[in-house]
Amino acid sequence: MATDRNDALKLDEQDGLKGLRDAFVLRDGLNYLDGNSLGPMQKCVTERVGKCLEREWGQDLIASWNSAGWYRLPQTVGAKIAALVGAGENDVAVTDSTSVNLFKVLAAALSMRPDRNVIVSERSNFPTDLYIAEGLAAFADRGHELRLIDSTDELEGAVDDGVAAVMLTQVNYRSGELHDMAQVTKRVHDAGAVMIWDLAHSAGALPVDLAAADVDFAIGCGYKYLNGGPGAPAFVYVAPRLQDEVSQPLSGWFGHTAPFAMEPTFDAAPTIHRFLTGTPPILSMVALDAALDIWKDVSLGALREKSVKLCELFISLVEERCAGHGLSLASPRDASKRGSQVCFAHENAYPIMQALIARDVIGDFRAPDILRFGFAPLYVRFVDVYDAVDQLLRVLQTEEWKQDRFMVKGAVT
Amino acid sequence: MATDRNDALKLDEQDGLKGLRDAFVLRDGLNYLDGNSLGPMQKCVTERVGKCLEREWGQDLIASWNSAGWYRLPQTVGAKIAALVGAGENDVAVTDSTSVNLFKVLAAALSMRPDRNVIVSERSNFPTDLYIAEGLAAFADRGHELRLIDSTDELEGAVDDGVAAVMLTQVNYRSGELHDMAQVTKRVHDAGAVMIWDLAHSAGALPVDLAAADVDFAIGCGYKYLNGGPGAPAFVYVAPRLQDEVSQPLSGWFGHTAPFAMEPTFDAAPTIHRFLTGTPPILSMVALDAALDIWKDVSLGALREKSVKLCELFISLVEERCAGHGLSLASPRDASKRGSQVCFAHENAYPIMQALIARDVIGDFRAPDILRFGFAPLYVRFVDVYDAVDQLLRVLQTEEWKQDRFMVKGAVT
Repeated sequence: MATDRNDALKLDEQDGLKGLRDAFVLRDGLNYLDGNSLGPMQKCVTERVGKCLEREWGQDLIASWNSAGWYRLPQTVGAKIAALVGAGENDVAVTDSTSVNLFKVLAAALSMRPDRNVIVSERSNFPTDLYIAEGLAAFADRGHELRLIDSTDELEGAVDDGVAAVMLTQVNYRSGELHDMAQVTKRVHDAGAVMIWDLAHSAGALPVDLAAADVDFAIGCGYKYLNGGPGAPAFVYVAPRLQDEVSQPLSGWFGHTAPFAMEPTFDAAPTIHRFLTGTPPILSMVALDAALDIWKDVSLGALREKSVKLCELFISLVEERCAGHGLSLASPRDASKRGSQVCFAHENAYPIMQALIARDVIGDFRAPDILRFGFAPLYVRFVDVYDAVDQLLRVLQTEEWKQDRFMVKGAVT
Repeated sequence: MATDRNDALKLDEQDGLKGLRDAFVLRDGLNYLDGNSLGPMQKCVTERVGKCLEREWGQDLIASWNSAGWYRLPQTVGAKIAALVGAGENDVAVTDSTSVNLFKVLAAALSMRPDRNVIVSERSNFPTDLYIAEGLAAFADRGHELRLIDSTDELEGAVDDGVAAVMLTQVNYRSGELHDMAQVTKRVHDAGAVMIWDLAHSAGALPVDLAAADVDFAIGCGYKYLNGGPGAPAFVYVAPRLQDEVSQPLSGWFGHTAPFAMEPTFDAAPTIHRFLTGTPPILSMVALDAALDIWKDVSLGALREKSVKLCELFISLVEERCAGHGLSLASPRDASKRGSQVCFAHENAYPIMQALIARDVIGDFRAPDILRFGFAPLYVRFVDVYDAVDQLLRVLQTEEWKQDRFMVKGAVT
């Protein structure tokens, strides 16, 4: 473990992934530990989006739906993500937002278990997942109940024979707690329920194997560890055994078996395409498409190994160097139960994070008292971890976070 | 009316909107009459998207949600569209796709009339609108029926006291038929039903006055006459009298009254915001945002006047010069009942359109026998109309459309 800055530099020297950082635009001095909220841009994205603007839209216009492959982007981009989450190349589509995709798969799951009416999730799940379940249940108006548990330890008792679906986020957005996908999925299936995983903080952060765990549905985000750009389109996975069996209510023309036949009646495509809805936002799609090319040379095992080392270093340095300043670890201490982020709780978390940001160390605040730091192994260095702790210590020692300017809250933090 | 090319050039000389074409990227020789499918790019879009990439995402990263106004884009872009459709500046939001937005407003409409179970639409409506209604009705599973009429002349009989909602596209995607929004809305309201208009082929094509017609809900497309780019985000209008009253099932975090409070229970924003769902695709949003700036100097009255003149010229030239070649007008002859497009039917419409496209006159084919030409008044010139007919005549006279290469069908036409 590194105990001074030179040790950290040595770890970077030995890092098998070190060359990948060069692909990213990261200005000098910026210590970006918020890739779990918005991944940074890669240089190739500017070129790809520029080509889409100048050549594809600007010159070729409508013809680009065919000639530039726009029409196939939901599947071609989906295939790149499939490789990161243990899915077959035809089993992932890129479309809409994570929230909209959750609505689709949750509706499909409920339709698979018409005699059951409970949806189980965690109270600490990312709020939009709970909101979507709430909206869907209210509209379905068939007495669906959202049953919230405090921990997956309660699953055994909570998943009874009234439960239609269990929806969980594999890595918790606040604590970074990592669930055992295979074990939980098996338990849910044993109880006769359908399993939905939200991979927002997993895809591109650690190895995921949807097929091996026999997961029914999964959704995930394109703009965090996949670096697809602000509000990048999201993805949806449907187990191949279900693709031709289930339907989803957002049945728009892109989900039709022959969209351009312009038939008045819906005929669902026999593939993952039936989970598409309307026309996808192409500029955002091509940015994500370009951003994903970096993964073809990345070993997910090596990625995870580096992720664990970065997080372990951060925890040990904070606990050692910032001891006595009121920080307490709010993520699992056991690396095997933690994603690629680390949170510390502090009663003044908000202004402390603002003061850190002013020092160009970018993490984020999560209400009510969490300092959250993401360690994306593609571009975060060990020396960044060292320097972040150094800056955190200064903020705490100098108490500069008490300045008024750090107390003002913006719309997005 | 112009009878030769010089007359057309003279009309362009007198055109009050002629300067606007310079804002667009349209390569020499391209005669683009497909802006009703995908509007062309404006020069300002490259700059705006470039700034979003290099500065906002590339340099400022997550901070741009506040500092670059990303978080407010659904409403700031919505306000620009509101000005084009007769809506208050806070009554339009830009989000998701047209299909997804239709699902939201249709669900809201059905929840307003729980004792009625019929949705009325036109058989010739754009298919995705019908598919969405079908998917929604199937999922709601409360005996909803989709009642399709062949013409709005049948509305009187079709809208009985079992009808919850009527959803129509103001300008038909094939024929270009334009409905009388105020009259139809009044008839629907008189029958106690909720009125939903799809403005895909109206917004930016002609003056629309949602408020004056007392419309309940409207949706529309960003990538046709609004020139927002391929798959640009769509818009949704909700009458102010309904915004705080109705709910919609796609209740994601962007529709919450305080998204970043991260509360486990959904609390719908008291504004149009409750019709937002997930994180919007920012690159596609800023392209649309930039594309809309051109409208601030455009009189919609002058726009409509030019649109009518362009369409009238096209009809008269085709009927005069291409007589005897099997073309028949498939759009209303009365300009007051037609949008900004003209269709002709021909039994060999598909290869004829491909041959025209090979001659750089870009219209599109719509199954089974329609040649569709859009006349977007911001950039289409009278000389383009003249030249398009000239090329059409040559294709017909030479019968070059009979070549094998024009018979092959692509995925998107």
